[in-house]
Amino acid sequence: MRAGSKPATKRKAAAATSEAIFADLEKRLQQHVGTRVRIIGKAGAGKIEIEYFSPEDLERILQLLRLPSG
Amino acid sequence: MRAGSKPATKRKAAAATSEAIFADLEKRLQQHVGTRVRIIGKAGAGKIEIEYFSPEDLERILQLLRLPSG
Repeated sequence: MRAGSKPATKRKAAAATSEAIFADLEKRLQQHVGTRVRIIGKAGAGKIEIEYFSPEDLERILQLLRLPSG
Repeated sequence: MRAGSKPATKRKAAAATSEAIFADLEKRLQQHVGTRVRIIGKAGAGKIEIEYFSPEDLERILQLLRLPSG
């Protein structure tokens, strides 16, 4: 079934590309933020987890996010 | 046991204060980021979860974090 298998192969390739992009993004975010960062999910929907290991980490992350102090 | 109960009361009060501060922080972060945000843990260690519901959300969050494009 050539006609049927082609889209499946394309989907697989697209998924692999997306995974590679997200692995790279996760790595870059981690280096940027300076703590452990995980991206769970994919392009359509998901979540970014940023870990902090001290109040100073938390403070730094909030500053990175430019949260106005309130 | 007055001497024993006092620290426990203080700990309870401190925990309640910390919870209130974190609930407020979570709310402010959520308004700032514009998607669902959760803070899991407390001051010492934990994680911030930032959800995204579209590629545009993700892009915006990364811009907020000032991630250099690579």
